[in-house]
Amino acid sequence: MSNYKARQIHLISRPVGMPTHDDFALVEVELESPDDGEVLVRNHFMSVDPYMRGRMRAEASYAAPYQLNTVMYGGAIGEVMESADASLQVGDIVLNGAAWQDAFVAPAATVSKLTPFDPGQLSLYLGTLGMPGLTAYVGLLKYGEPKQGETVFVSAASGAVGANVCQIAKLKDCRVIGSVGSDTKAQWLLDECGVDAVINYKTCGDLNKALADAAPEGIDVYFENVGGDHLQAALNVINPFGRIAACGMISSYNNAEPVPGPNNLMLIVGKKIRINGFIVSDHGDKREQFLEDMVGWIQEGRIKSRETVVEGMDNAVDAFLGLFSGNNFGKMVVKL
Amino acid sequence: MSNYKARQIHLISRPVGMPTHDDFALVEVELESPDDGEVLVRNHFMSVDPYMRGRMRAEASYAAPYQLNTVMYGGAIGEVMESADASLQVGDIVLNGAAWQDAFVAPAATVSKLTPFDPGQLSLYLGTLGMPGLTAYVGLLKYGEPKQGETVFVSAASGAVGANVCQIAKLKDCRVIGSVGSDTKAQWLLDECGVDAVINYKTCGDLNKALADAAPEGIDVYFENVGGDHLQAALNVINPFGRIAACGMISSYNNAEPVPGPNNLMLIVGKKIRINGFIVSDHGDKREQFLEDMVGWIQEGRIKSRETVVEGMDNAVDAFLGLFSGNNFGKMVVKL
Repeated sequence: MSNYKARQIHLISRPVGMPTHDDFALVEVELESPDDGEVLVRNHFMSVDPYMRGRMRAEASYAAPYQLNTVMYGGAIGEVMESADASLQVGDIVLNGAAWQDAFVAPAATVSKLTPFDPGQLSLYLGTLGMPGLTAYVGLLKYGEPKQGETVFVSAASGAVGANVCQIAKLKDCRVIGSVGSDTKAQWLLDECGVDAVINYKTCGDLNKALADAAPEGIDVYFENVGGDHLQAALNVINPFGRIAACGMISSYNNAEPVPGPNNLMLIVGKKIRINGFIVSDHGDKREQFLEDMVGWIQEGRIKSRETVVEGMDNAVDAFLGLFSGNNFGKMVVKL
Repeated sequence: MSNYKARQIHLISRPVGMPTHDDFALVEVELESPDDGEVLVRNHFMSVDPYMRGRMRAEASYAAPYQLNTVMYGGAIGEVMESADASLQVGDIVLNGAAWQDAFVAPAATVSKLTPFDPGQLSLYLGTLGMPGLTAYVGLLKYGEPKQGETVFVSAASGAVGANVCQIAKLKDCRVIGSVGSDTKAQWLLDECGVDAVINYKTCGDLNKALADAAPEGIDVYFENVGGDHLQAALNVINPFGRIAACGMISSYNNAEPVPGPNNLMLIVGKKIRINGFIVSDHGDKREQFLEDMVGWIQEGRIKSRETVVEGMDNAVDAFLGLFSGNNFGKMVVKL
């Protein structure tokens, strides 16, 4: 037995519709000392992300669903406290997939040592320099294929993925239109991220009209994070041969029953649109180039990051639930 | 003035919902003799195609809408009766875009001389060797990218496009599942086209279940001609990294009001699906290779064609309307 205990969040029932606190339980466990080849890690930050809602369904479509009555998984950054493997030393910072717990024992090979470009900004490796940043980078550049002078429309534009999409598109000399759910987020995109036009979808009235007004020359790329009305509006204004990078459809994640989709899908044919769904985990081969580019852009002040930091495992479920009401501003992380 | 009159079909009102005879008028006009550089052509066959319904809308999205009170346009095959251009002789067979009339005068450069591989099968150049055949060839091979051993699902599978998709997919050593609206069509696909499984969507009950039963290993390519329930069922069974070639969505063409789409579009993300809308007119560069391949396949007996031939301009509107009730079996053409 080690000297460490871990606090874990377990999924104890599969939510129907919007999850509630009753679907989760906080569980404290004693940790064994690491066996040969293992390390004991204390997590400093864990990530909460919209994709986790999908993992709570029994029929999760592209990864193993969370098992009931065990700890959930997700991205985290921790520090090695005990090591029984030569590859890692006490004090090493490691990226790991063992979130929803503040400490754990695992084989050293299942965590990856990080040499942070700035030790004061560790949590960036869960956001702009982590999975959401790589998602933005791959989705926009590989599937959106933005060309200089084109117009890029981004939904959930101030989110962990969206804000990076907006700023990378600006780096590629595109005109960028973002959709967000608050005026504060809109102002940040305009003032800090250089976005050209922002729509507050909660107050704009008819989204189709708002987007048409914001995009008098149409859009060429749509980075899809939301689905539903946003996809419908994007199809209405997208130009011939437009590209849609389909990253997520958060508007549907908490539907208890499936909701019908846009009524204008025939425009996919008429406008010769390409849609690519994608999942970041297929694109690990891009990570090295991504990190080199992104660290450079951050150091040059060309990519800015917003984070919402929630304190403590006791508040992790609230942090997760807040993703669906837009309580986060930028990347939502939990400090442990 | 020439010795020729032309009988033309004009669009006289824009249909709302299913078109009726009241939306069209048969008009007889005298033809002038051809001026320098022009020819006078008598059409032997004209094509009616589902895409024409889109042209009847004022807001036609990917080509000029039909103008009211003038002759509509479309594919036809005719014979030069008078020529005032050195490039064409009386008796030449020409492919032209001047359908919905049995004769016309036009610049020689607007028609293209045809050397039919079999003069007894002229109408094939409106179907298997024409626009629908090229649509099948480009859509399946360029956008569907079928690989040996994969499963291809084709909706409207016995239609002018679909039957060619099915047979080309078989030539590429795929397993092919077709969806049709009658048992006669189903039997023809099984017996004559070598299709592996057929669903009669009108009698199968739940299409999602019928397709899942027909595709126990899922589908890898969906050739989309129908939309709506067919797209939803295809998304439910499509395998990760599946491709959807979106050629048309005939189920929606006569909707007076837009109808919501599938309720499972999030599967595009989760399964990493690629959808490509396309229009054959962008792919003229593939025509030469297409004709070479397709004539060869026809001569080898590996591609078979069904046609429904309607006689006379008086019945052209009925032929067109029949496309939407499935009255056609294979390519619908009008013999003039």
